[in-house]
Amino acid sequence: MATQNKLVGKMVIGQSGGPTAVINQSLVGAVLAARQQINITGILGARHGIAGIMKEDFIDLTTQSVEQLELVATTPAAALGSVRLKPGRAECEKVFEVFRKNDVRYFFYIGGNDSAETAHIIAEMAKEANYDFCTVHIPKTIDNDLKVTDHCPGFASAARFVALAFMGDDRDNRALEGIKVNVVMGRSAGFLTAASALARQAEGDGPHLIYLPERVFDVEQFKQDVRDAVAKYGRCVIAASEGISDKDGNPISTSGEKDSHGNVQLSGSGALGDTLAALVKDAFAGQKVRVRADTFGYLQRSFPTIVSEIDAKEARAVGDYAVGHATSTGQPGSVAIRRLSSTPYSSECFITPLSSVAREATEMKGEYINEAGNDVTQAWIDYVAPLVGELPKMGRL
Amino acid sequence: MATQNKLVGKMVIGQSGGPTAVINQSLVGAVLAARQQINITGILGARHGIAGIMKEDFIDLTTQSVEQLELVATTPAAALGSVRLKPGRAECEKVFEVFRKNDVRYFFYIGGNDSAETAHIIAEMAKEANYDFCTVHIPKTIDNDLKVTDHCPGFASAARFVALAFMGDDRDNRALEGIKVNVVMGRSAGFLTAASALARQAEGDGPHLIYLPERVFDVEQFKQDVRDAVAKYGRCVIAASEGISDKDGNPISTSGEKDSHGNVQLSGSGALGDTLAALVKDAFAGQKVRVRADTFGYLQRSFPTIVSEIDAKEARAVGDYAVGHATSTGQPGSVAIRRLSSTPYSSECFITPLSSVAREATEMKGEYINEAGNDVTQAWIDYVAPLVGELPKMGRL
Repeated sequence: MATQNKLVGKMVIGQSGGPTAVINQSLVGAVLAARQQINITGILGARHGIAGIMKEDFIDLTTQSVEQLELVATTPAAALGSVRLKPGRAECEKVFEVFRKNDVRYFFYIGGNDSAETAHIIAEMAKEANYDFCTVHIPKTIDNDLKVTDHCPGFASAARFVALAFMGDDRDNRALEGIKVNVVMGRSAGFLTAASALARQAEGDGPHLIYLPERVFDVEQFKQDVRDAVAKYGRCVIAASEGISDKDGNPISTSGEKDSHGNVQLSGSGALGDTLAALVKDAFAGQKVRVRADTFGYLQRSFPTIVSEIDAKEARAVGDYAVGHATSTGQPGSVAIRRLSSTPYSSECFITPLSSVAREATEMKGEYINEAGNDVTQAWIDYVAPLVGELPKMGRL
Repeated sequence: MATQNKLVGKMVIGQSGGPTAVINQSLVGAVLAARQQINITGILGARHGIAGIMKEDFIDLTTQSVEQLELVATTPAAALGSVRLKPGRAECEKVFEVFRKNDVRYFFYIGGNDSAETAHIIAEMAKEANYDFCTVHIPKTIDNDLKVTDHCPGFASAARFVALAFMGDDRDNRALEGIKVNVVMGRSAGFLTAASALARQAEGDGPHLIYLPERVFDVEQFKQDVRDAVAKYGRCVIAASEGISDKDGNPISTSGEKDSHGNVQLSGSGALGDTLAALVKDAFAGQKVRVRADTFGYLQRSFPTIVSEIDAKEARAVGDYAVGHATSTGQPGSVAIRRLSSTPYSSECFITPLSSVAREATEMKGEYINEAGNDVTQAWIDYVAPLVGELPKMGRL
């Protein structure tokens, strides 16, 4: 892309929030694009995002071999290191000071809505200080909960893991019948949990029940749902989002810990799975039932080799696009994806204001969830299936 | 293989115990081999193993299309359905009665040591009754704990899942540093947990500590180990077998439930992970540490697409070999694998008496575990790496 704006200087790129299987594609996409731009005079990778910038802890990405970068691109989890830090005013000022000191003119931050907000605050700070500067947010999150964009890089690969896991686990549950609860990541948005529906290939395949944070989780209704499913199928596979909450908004089960964003810790604990398993046992009190619970945990977001091809390609594309946009326009923004067609699938990148993505997250549309609030709809399948890509066919006798 | 013995009649084949990613390869290997044998007059698949035989619940496998069978072969989990039933005398007599009634002369049972014992009891019963009959045990178990054989079909694919999971999770833990506990299946044998060591590709890669059921788990030593690892690496990834126990043989944590074999339920619960995470927090009391625990659970044994090539090939081979042996010799036995070479890897099947495999399981050799009891040795890596096959290379900056 031809350079059109006058902003000349170094660029900093960082990764933030929970890793994904393809976040390094975005990193490498941006770095390789930046190497083609004459007004980017150096490429600094910030170790652990904002935390590294404040300490001037950079890796020089200007000269690393393409071969090495391509290997990084196919490696899950943030190669630069990530961070869970929502910087305050003082921290943003420190970041800005480091940028000025090092003649950094471009900042690319790969992350979710919190990262978009960080980018937004720093962009505003530069404007106030009349410092010529361009910051672009590059989207990633397995939660798929960013506004504006059709979907988020990182989601489809995690969704592929979830779909495959349920395919295998449903065969397992068929072989040794019982009731199986699988807890899937997703604090406020059920996208990833809903991807479990892609595991179904024939009548009777699980998951038979899907519980999402977008709907109130009612304990008695849950018990009845499971009893109904067992009556119908002789077994039951359940997908439950880690974020399911009761009518007062209280999580069904947590470890009681809070993360650095002040959010209650949901992942990295088997608490919810064990709670749901206990509820199921209670629903069948006096009967002999085999109940098991698994919490998919961190494997969902960083499992090597389980990658959606479209996801990898788009994650690369948003990194590349961010650099092209920044160097050609000098304008801040967040890269988003527009779906052009589902069959065959095609998409394009575009830029949306940082403020439109920052802070608030989104959740699943009502039309994706069934009326009873315990399953998804065909509209959801139509949305998600092309992103996840073809899945292996399960044989049966 | 030319038919050499005079035993003519139907065969029954069943699957038993925990499913694996390749147990259907053994089924299909046996079925396709049986179709070539003129003294096998019909092929009956028992639904849910012994339980199905007692109810005469069979699927006719004599005529299903090869295409359908090949799809079944690559599908994880027992396609015939499995069972966890250690039959008593009365149940074995019922099975034997069904065999006689249906002119069943061959019985192939795919499973672990409990299944070998069932096969053994029925073989003895037939001998006592002077009923011409041949029963062959086909080995499978992700636990890798069968005696005689070099390793068990099913193990290497599960080991591959564990190795990949740790590779990704170690990158994840590097990106967001902290202490991570991963609980791996394996009640009495640490083979699968020990496979986590294959995730290491460079100095500092996790897992940094590996705890196996073959060694006493000492809580205070564990806390010290984790503190030492964190001092050295700034983080710590821990592999712990679900079966780790204290010096009195009590499991470190269980859900308190028992399975139908009278064993304490270890899988299908996050209890041990949460217990170990609490111990780690205790080890760093007063300090701010990020501690997470995942329990890999059932995903390890039935994840579609995560299969060791060698495992798939050998699982097919043991099924094929069982039928060849039975029809040519008419003698009972259990199929085992002999490793001929590790580099390049090659192996062959052979027959060992049912009694040599039945009942008792085996565990990891002492030479595979380090002196401190918190890691594996190079001898272990040399043993397991060829089985799991090549793993993707992780990129790093």
